[in-house]
Amino acid sequence: MKPHPDKAKLEKLFPYIRQYQALADKHGINDIFQDNGGKLLQVLLTTGLKILPGREGNDAIDDAGVEYELKSVNTLLTQSFSTHHHMNPTIIKKYKKVPWVFAVYQAIELQAIYLISPEGLNYYFDKWEKKWHDDGGKDINNPKIPLKYVMENGKVIYRK
Amino acid sequence: MKPHPDKAKLEKLFPYIRQYQALADKHGINDIFQDNGGKLLQVLLTTGLKILPGREGNDAIDDAGVEYELKSVNTLLTQSFSTHHHMNPTIIKKYKKVPWVFAVYQAIELQAIYLISPEGLNYYFDKWEKKWHDDGGKDINNPKIPLKYVMENGKVIYRK
Repeated sequence: MKPHPDKAKLEKLFPYIRQYQALADKHGINDIFQDNGGKLLQVLLTTGLKILPGREGNDAIDDAGVEYELKSVNTLLTQSFSTHHHMNPTIIKKYKKVPWVFAVYQAIELQAIYLISPEGLNYYFDKWEKKWHDDGGKDINNPKIPLKYVMENGKVIYRK
Repeated sequence: MKPHPDKAKLEKLFPYIRQYQALADKHGINDIFQDNGGKLLQVLLTTGLKILPGREGNDAIDDAGVEYELKSVNTLLTQSFSTHHHMNPTIIKKYKKVPWVFAVYQAIELQAIYLISPEGLNYYFDKWEKKWHDDGGKDINNPKIPLKYVMENGKVIYRK
């Protein structure tokens, strides 16, 4: 096996990748190349939020101690936000307690960030809760929140 | 919400991140920040292998048309390679047909690459096949290949 000629380009760029990872480490992200780590760093530094280590999902907290639910979408792949793979009343109850931050990417480029209060998402919470009961208590697999809804109902925190 | 002072550092580094993503795009990796994309790029350029788009797992192919099974490990997190979440005789049969490339990382830093022929992995293939039959045809959830075995039995393709 012999290296590709582009390897020289990678080696020239890698010192900057290391610096980006070092910055990510400082903010609690130990692998930029997994689970959108390198994108989450952009959201944290843009919003001033901090991640809550050891929590399920991408929960974040601000300087005043307010917790947020963090969601992201890559518009090159899909036009809606994923939520939870086992949606049920317990999760919904948790979701109703915090404001939501929605980050919109095009590939790796942050395009916009929207903020929606939990009340602003009641339409979906109620719909999921009803469906869960109608289905006899069966968890819902990852119900989506459309980007369109977020753009129409969210407060713009950042726009590229 | 107000940006973190480190945002300026991110903005200074991001042009290089964009170049890294552009290089990744050229080699078939459309998101460096997911599924170890930014690490896979290192392996591809170091080995000269190309990814096989649309295949399950990280299959790769060399200039001569030989296909490879690609596995990676981050030694900061674990000392063994994951294989497949539903291991069974069909998967094992597929695994027996190709040489295996094992990439070893420490966080995002590529440390070494090892090559093992399918015969060199018969110990594990036989063990998994026996277990599958002994368990009455129940798929095995992600049996591991220890890094120690790979280091002792693999051919070194690259070492940092």
